[in-house]
Amino acid sequence: MKILVFAGSLRKGSYNKRFAREAMRLLAGRPGVETEFVDLQPLAIPVYDGDLEEASGVPAGVKTLSDKILAADALLISTPEYNGSIPGILKNTVDWLSRLKPVSLSGKHLLMIAASPGALGGIRSLWHSRQPFEVLGTHVFPEVLALPLAHQAFDEGGKLKDPKLAERLSALLDRYVAHARKA
Amino acid sequence: MKILVFAGSLRKGSYNKRFAREAMRLLAGRPGVETEFVDLQPLAIPVYDGDLEEASGVPAGVKTLSDKILAADALLISTPEYNGSIPGILKNTVDWLSRLKPVSLSGKHLLMIAASPGALGGIRSLWHSRQPFEVLGTHVFPEVLALPLAHQAFDEGGKLKDPKLAERLSALLDRYVAHARKA
Amino acid sequence: MKILVFAGSLRKGSYNKRFAREAMRLLAGRPGVETEFVDLQPLAIPVYDGDLEEASGVPAGVKTLSDKILAADALLISTPEYNGSIPGILKNTVDWLSRLKPVSLSGKHLLMIAASPGALGGIRSLWHSRQPFEVLGTHVFPEVLALPLAHQAFDEGGKLKDPKLAERLSALLDRYVAHARKA
Amino acid sequence: MKILVFAGSLRKGSYNKRFAREAMRLLAGRPGVETEFVDLQPLAIPVYDGDLEEASGVPAGVKTLSDKILAADALLISTPEYNGSIPGILKNTVDWLSRLKPVSLSGKHLLMIAASPGALGGIRSLWHSRQPFEVLGTHVFPEVLALPLAHQAFDEGGKLKDPKLAERLSALLDRYVAHARKA
Repeated sequence: MKILVFAGSLRKGSYNKRFAREAMRLLAGRPGVETEFVDLQPLAIPVYDGDLEEASGVPAGVKTLSDKILAADALLISTPEYNGSIPGILKNTVDWLSRLKPVSLSGKHLLMIAASPGALGGIRSLWHSRQPFEVLGTHVFPEVLALPLAHQAFDEGGKLKDPKLAERLSALLDRYVAHARKA
Repeated sequence: MKILVFAGSLRKGSYNKRFAREAMRLLAGRPGVETEFVDLQPLAIPVYDGDLEEASGVPAGVKTLSDKILAADALLISTPEYNGSIPGILKNTVDWLSRLKPVSLSGKHLLMIAASPGALGGIRSLWHSRQPFEVLGTHVFPEVLALPLAHQAFDEGGKLKDPKLAERLSALLDRYVAHARKA
Repeated sequence: MKILVFAGSLRKGSYNKRFAREAMRLLAGRPGVETEFVDLQPLAIPVYDGDLEEASGVPAGVKTLSDKILAADALLISTPEYNGSIPGILKNTVDWLSRLKPVSLSGKHLLMIAASPGALGGIRSLWHSRQPFEVLGTHVFPEVLALPLAHQAFDEGGKLKDPKLAERLSALLDRYVAHARKA
Repeated sequence: MKILVFAGSLRKGSYNKRFAREAMRLLAGRPGVETEFVDLQPLAIPVYDGDLEEASGVPAGVKTLSDKILAADALLISTPEYNGSIPGILKNTVDWLSRLKPVSLSGKHLLMIAASPGALGGIRSLWHSRQPFEVLGTHVFPEVLALPLAHQAFDEGGKLKDPKLAERLSALLDRYVAHARKA
């Protein structure tokens, strides 16, 4: 079972890239589970413009991501919360992905987690961001995990400092993998 | 009273640009109401990236839009529905706007309408798109208007063919202007 | 595989009870699929009140429904749209169900459909109503079906008049059953 | 200016009734502001049932509440979060209110706050609960306030123990009253 992992933000120091990679580390030991991280930044996906699409087609970065999603059994996205909602960059990526048929996201399993420097950990984004994925036919796992105070959460090696949080994430990954494997 | 008008899409032939401009035409006669249309396409707002912001600051196109919003009393946005939700390009614009302080959207009145070639007219987007604006302190007018079958809705001059629809839009604009003027 | 079916409204002539029963009729032929309809009206579930719960425990009607859900593999709910959102009576039922442990809805599959006399068929409710179920761990099927103009949609025998609509519902039920069976 | 205050729960010891009353205490000194608290419990509003409405009309408790809302200039609701969303009892109350014409909630100003024993303070409910009010034409104030750990938040006299929180609530009430007064 192959899980494609990415973060809904572009910057190098992104807490969500760290949180996504920490989830991969926790998944590492599991038999039959393979993970791949894809960084959206080098894909250089532009803002969606129908005229651009008509003139030059779907950008190469979108095709790359779409192919990786098609080749995966399940997805894991760690997303920041921008203004109480899905980041524009993540929604823009979804909008471009929806232009390629078959739609890669359709029928895939997805676990959404979030990291945020705020006290709520991105919980509003997690619940608001499900809708476009579900509209495209993605099976969004009902459980989510929001990491508050993300700027203090990781040690220098990128591991979660709080062992209880790492355990909670690990247990969530267990449930997600078990579910995605069955379905 | 100055109303800034824009559409949540970039392409030249956008139904939402037409719908926005039709709303402006209907507003044209009203005493004390001034409108300005701003096309997001030439503003060339890039996908948000925290590293880009740190290196080069907030892009000029975002500043231009932010200044126009600050100078307006109220806003009117016509937005497409992408995947049952707010278009990435509109959310990305909001995300950039939120980086400039004071946040231009905060405290402004906003009327959201939508045009879509589908049968539902973008109604899911209208209700989903409110959240980021409200999180930023925008007073989103409770009523909305969704225009279904937008590809057949306009005549060659860009006017709504159906006089009842034009009347409904006009009556909505009346209520919006009356409310925004009081507050 | 057992599918429990109910409607999010109480009145006898409910369009959603009809739509739910029509879905059952279409499911009837399938090998290995068993359906049961439960009418919420005779369950007489009161408005949730923590003091009532403390004094008299969870009402018998809630326990009956909870047991039926626990005994089912999957759920199908047809829900009206009240004020653009989940009907209070359906949400109140969910709130009571969440008081019994283990929570019957947790881990179950759910297909949500809607019937409405309006032009939008309850589409706003369908997308708004998912959240409480998902918060409780229900796997809400990404696809939905909204039936507009429900007061004209059924013949005297309760069948959908429009064969294309019946086909669309049937095809959706196929995809739902196939998914729920695997998972 | 008259503000009608209520809580979205019925039980006597409700944290939201306390939070609502604390907001009233903080409003008490303001010139030109009058508040009234209405407890939903004695109104005995039943679960909505179209057959009941047809047989006996809208219940007296709904009419009482509707009249109080009509007589008020603005509303303040403190609501619990039930399953990540609006409590069924509050949504059921809104559904009944929408049956009386003119709809009392239409055009009114509303400030929503929430108290919850959990760590998130009901933030998911606050954002999810806006939709039915907005569909009915209520001007829901963009800002909200969520009180986490509500079981520890009040002293024996019902005052917020944390003076900073009381200040934040008071400042929010200032902004709300100023806005509602203008509009």
